[in-house]
Amino acid sequence: MQWLIMNTVHAAAQSAKSSSLRLANLSIVKRNDALNAIAQEVLARKEDIVKANRQDMEGSRSLDLPDALIKRLKYDEAKISESIGSIRSLVLQEDPLNRSLGRTELDQGLVLEKVSCPIGVIGVVFESRPDALLQISTLCLKSGNAVLLKGGSEAKRTNQALFDAIQVAIMKVDPLFEGAVQLLSTREEVREMLQLDQYIDLIIPRGSNELVRSIQAQTKIPVLGHSAGICHTYVDSQADIDMALKVCFDAKVQYPAVCNAMETLLVNAEIAETFLPLMAEAYVKAKVELRGDERTREIIEARPASDGDFATEYNDLILNVKVVQDVEEAISHINRYGSHHTDAIVTGDERRARYFQEAVDSASVMWNCSTRFADGFRYGLGAEVGISTNKTHARGPVGLEGLTIYKYRLNGNGHIVADYAGERAKQYTHRKIQ
Amino acid sequence: MQWLIMNTVHAAAQSAKSSSLRLANLSIVKRNDALNAIAQEVLARKEDIVKANRQDMEGSRSLDLPDALIKRLKYDEAKISESIGSIRSLVLQEDPLNRSLGRTELDQGLVLEKVSCPIGVIGVVFESRPDALLQISTLCLKSGNAVLLKGGSEAKRTNQALFDAIQVAIMKVDPLFEGAVQLLSTREEVREMLQLDQYIDLIIPRGSNELVRSIQAQTKIPVLGHSAGICHTYVDSQADIDMALKVCFDAKVQYPAVCNAMETLLVNAEIAETFLPLMAEAYVKAKVELRGDERTREIIEARPASDGDFATEYNDLILNVKVVQDVEEAISHINRYGSHHTDAIVTGDERRARYFQEAVDSASVMWNCSTRFADGFRYGLGAEVGISTNKTHARGPVGLEGLTIYKYRLNGNGHIVADYAGERAKQYTHRKIQ
Repeated sequence: MQWLIMNTVHAAAQSAKSSSLRLANLSIVKRNDALNAIAQEVLARKEDIVKANRQDMEGSRSLDLPDALIKRLKYDEAKISESIGSIRSLVLQEDPLNRSLGRTELDQGLVLEKVSCPIGVIGVVFESRPDALLQISTLCLKSGNAVLLKGGSEAKRTNQALFDAIQVAIMKVDPLFEGAVQLLSTREEVREMLQLDQYIDLIIPRGSNELVRSIQAQTKIPVLGHSAGICHTYVDSQADIDMALKVCFDAKVQYPAVCNAMETLLVNAEIAETFLPLMAEAYVKAKVELRGDERTREIIEARPASDGDFATEYNDLILNVKVVQDVEEAISHINRYGSHHTDAIVTGDERRARYFQEAVDSASVMWNCSTRFADGFRYGLGAEVGISTNKTHARGPVGLEGLTIYKYRLNGNGHIVADYAGERAKQYTHRKIQ
Repeated sequence: MQWLIMNTVHAAAQSAKSSSLRLANLSIVKRNDALNAIAQEVLARKEDIVKANRQDMEGSRSLDLPDALIKRLKYDEAKISESIGSIRSLVLQEDPLNRSLGRTELDQGLVLEKVSCPIGVIGVVFESRPDALLQISTLCLKSGNAVLLKGGSEAKRTNQALFDAIQVAIMKVDPLFEGAVQLLSTREEVREMLQLDQYIDLIIPRGSNELVRSIQAQTKIPVLGHSAGICHTYVDSQADIDMALKVCFDAKVQYPAVCNAMETLLVNAEIAETFLPLMAEAYVKAKVELRGDERTREIIEARPASDGDFATEYNDLILNVKVVQDVEEAISHINRYGSHHTDAIVTGDERRARYFQEAVDSASVMWNCSTRFADGFRYGLGAEVGISTNKTHARGPVGLEGLTIYKYRLNGNGHIVADYAGERAKQYTHRKIQ
């Protein structure tokens, strides 16, 4: 059995690798055709997909899974329409491949081009939401990557129905798409996939922090994502109080369950006595539980915040509050306790804002706006693969561009390195053409 | 003892992390001042450095180390001048930080900026060549990264002397540089460093394939580099024979010990009988040992090449030769046996060249020129950190840009996400400003 799994996953990854080499050469017309065909096929199979989803939901209810999970699992006609809308808008996005990223003349007749190209094979592991399957497959196809997908077992039938639609659609467009999208079905297969660094170039986990951490621990393949979203807002002494109230309320309350919601509010001591009572009033009305440091608790009512609280992602209506002496203390706190995801400053002082944006080591640093804006759609990237807190490759919300890398093409006319060595060496011109 | 090492390396990495946060905010003037100060200090300590190097070389001779290694270890006045020349030219390079990589208006008064910034802390492990220490430290400092260095034990005294010069130089420029460059001295310390993914963002190994592989196997931190350079040249049926002779000779003979030298020559069957005898004559004169497939051995004299030979990096005057039917067979062979480093086609047919350059999955793909051009200096990147065969972050020769990543800055005027949701939702403009 173990041997069988290894063999199946190995073969799947190998065929995805071969497929990726073909995909890299497909025109954007062909890649967009595939996306349109998928949208059409999903629409045509709408009823089957909804039926499969109903069975998944019934199965989950009988397993007594949490309500929130069952809610995320739901994939009805309205959600199918949304998915199709996303695919149509992805078709309209510019081709991320074959973009010239620079041209340099090294010498007469010897021109270096840096050109964007696909990464290769992407392994995606996601939980619950079946819309992730369509979103990520189409992002990968548009960017010329092959993809191995593994969804949650609770959405097994829905995922299979969506996968069948994709498979039929792309093969109608061109048999060269064979192997481009593949579905794994068990956890054992995922474990096996995470070992196949000779075929798989990047792993993208979409789901809980635990999922991301567990995947990071199991593989040597680069993992794109974030395992925590501990976001801060610092209200500076130079903040406009009304603006600060509005921005901090939005960052905590508008949708607390997501990674870009604020978990800790830092308030400058000079402004704390004016700002905090007003802010607390708004939060208490919205049923936000406040946990404060000592100085906060001298001004407003709050449970004491422990050191561990400042390192916790609540994803809930709970907020840490801390009074800080200055922007330096705010920056130190954020760089120490934060997760390098998204942090904000509210201030009227542009220099201080710029300094904060440079010194805070996070993927997104906001000035006078809500941390909740950190999102691929809002940033104008179109659909998003996820939000990355990595320090290499791609950071923050990642769209099509994060699924590409580049290659160099050097075009000569019989040029050899020997001519550039020794006493009569020719000189390089290194002239930037673009 | 073990505990002591862990503690020391942990403290070093932690202080490098703190330092990296300060470095990210230092102006380009200050960073260039540091580079100039290092050049000056190394020059002032020239005699001490040469003396330390002589002791290292004597030590290595008494240990009966291979001649090639002892040769690489040599760091005399001429080499010091070269290093200083490199540093001076690095000073002249554009600032890789705070470059605007794009600006988008999300809505009126809400502007998203994507700005280049340092990665953070780079761990560098290198063998023999003491010039690598200066080159990599200055590349890291110019790009605002802190660096932990570990050189070969055979160069211990030279490395310590160079490190002392760097340390004194940067601290003279600004005490904020404290912790920016640190030297580890034992293998145990490297092993410990490779575990510290909470502080170290990228590992760069510079040395043998074995070193790179061993480091990749020991860490979850992203590793930038290549573990093999199995490079090919494909001579197409439409090749200019004289050009092919020249390019293939250069790719194998000009400097066979390096990663971008050719290991396998692929020749189109249509041209093989004309081209191979002439090529073989030139190679035999240059003492290149030829290993051919069956069809090659019907045309020229060669030892039989095994399947394993085609997967071997010789770094020596040995070359595999194989006759192929067409460009497709050449591409398949390269994608299967190559190391995705650098490969070339010689042909007069532009369409075929373009197809080859798209379909070959390598960091550099040459047309009518030698694989030996794949190098940071020749590509005009200035000094190079190394050549990467990774599929994410940076590929091919990597210079200053590969030591940077980006962050997003979102500048608003009290903007909140709640205004873009619900029935009266404001619409995003997503207008590209740059």
